[in-house]
Amino acid sequence: MEKEISQAVIRRMPRYYRYLGELLDAGVDRISSNELSSRMRVTASQIRQDLNNFGGFGQQGYGYNVRYLYDEIGKILGLDRTHNMIVVGVGNLGQAIANYVKFEKLGFCIVGLFDIDPSLRGKQVRGLFVQMLEELPAFLEDHTVEIAALTIPKENAEATAKQLQSLGIGAIWNFAHVDLDCVEGLVVENVHLSDSLMQLSYNIANHNDR
Amino acid sequence: MEKEISQAVIRRMPRYYRYLGELLDAGVDRISSNELSSRMRVTASQIRQDLNNFGGFGQQGYGYNVRYLYDEIGKILGLDRTHNMIVVGVGNLGQAIANYVKFEKLGFCIVGLFDIDPSLRGKQVRGLFVQMLEELPAFLEDHTVEIAALTIPKENAEATAKQLQSLGIGAIWNFAHVDLDCVEGLVVENVHLSDSLMQLSYNIANHNDR
Repeated sequence: MEKEISQAVIRRMPRYYRYLGELLDAGVDRISSNELSSRMRVTASQIRQDLNNFGGFGQQGYGYNVRYLYDEIGKILGLDRTHNMIVVGVGNLGQAIANYVKFEKLGFCIVGLFDIDPSLRGKQVRGLFVQMLEELPAFLEDHTVEIAALTIPKENAEATAKQLQSLGIGAIWNFAHVDLDCVEGLVVENVHLSDSLMQLSYNIANHNDR
Repeated sequence: MEKEISQAVIRRMPRYYRYLGELLDAGVDRISSNELSSRMRVTASQIRQDLNNFGGFGQQGYGYNVRYLYDEIGKILGLDRTHNMIVVGVGNLGQAIANYVKFEKLGFCIVGLFDIDPSLRGKQVRGLFVQMLEELPAFLEDHTVEIAALTIPKENAEATAKQLQSLGIGAIWNFAHVDLDCVEGLVVENVHLSDSLMQLSYNIANHNDR
């Protein structure tokens, strides 16, 4: 791909992928851009514009081939191969992530669970035993790990991210309450659950105003 | 507020609020727009534009008063009052949400936990006992609840959201793997954890290309 695509477009791609997956599950082969637009509640022109970033996939008078579009967006998102992932921090949120069947369907395979709390050692979550973080270097001798889901307190987040990076794990799915964009060379996606709660709160206030 | 603000602007507000909160914690009273810009990694002009939607808060040559801006953005986001919330679906994710101290600091008070699985009845999470969903109507006679965090399978999500709405709960923080925008009159914030994972995957692929 030659052109740099804006993160705003990239942010919308998973939603397309989700909706197309549901259409596939429902046995739909082909969909008009208007139909897709009304289902997804975005304008048909927005859809065309977004997909044109990747060369466009529609055909005048035919609409979109659902399977083809699904597969192509999957490739764009890097879902045409599997990604091994570990969870660092096996509290409730870490366990919830380990238990999400959906991630594995998308090709994100959770291969290890790590924590620093000795009382968690050997606890089993979905067939995996919790290991101590200090065992990670040995673990990585036998396992390839691309992504670490980081579900630890924010105080330790940056140091742990750097440690993971030094061990060759280049991507962090960060749930700690701090943006980790500051670590050079690391690919980071920050998830702030409270941000979406605040957005909900704004919309409650605004909804009541009307 | 007279003007309708775009959701894109609203989506950025919690991040401002977070950074300003950190500045307050660090004892910073006043910050220039350039300094705020470099910390947050957005342009100073973007910050000015965003804040101008709400009347602007900066002063030429002075910058921003951190406490004032923090409080004003809090008001915009509806954080100047508390919101009672229940969790519906007390699996790992529901428990993780119940245990997030941060939400309470923001004024989101979790007042009840509900599930339909009888084996969870009476289980205690952070001082609250899990109740059965059928007990919710009686619970609501003594409690005001504004928000339900919905952490249940997607198959039951729409029906449960409608049921909650009929009981007077008007806002859903939705973690089920389905968009719930379709329910008329409900204020919904959909959280799709897998979307952010797919975005991470895109950025991994793109990062390696370079």
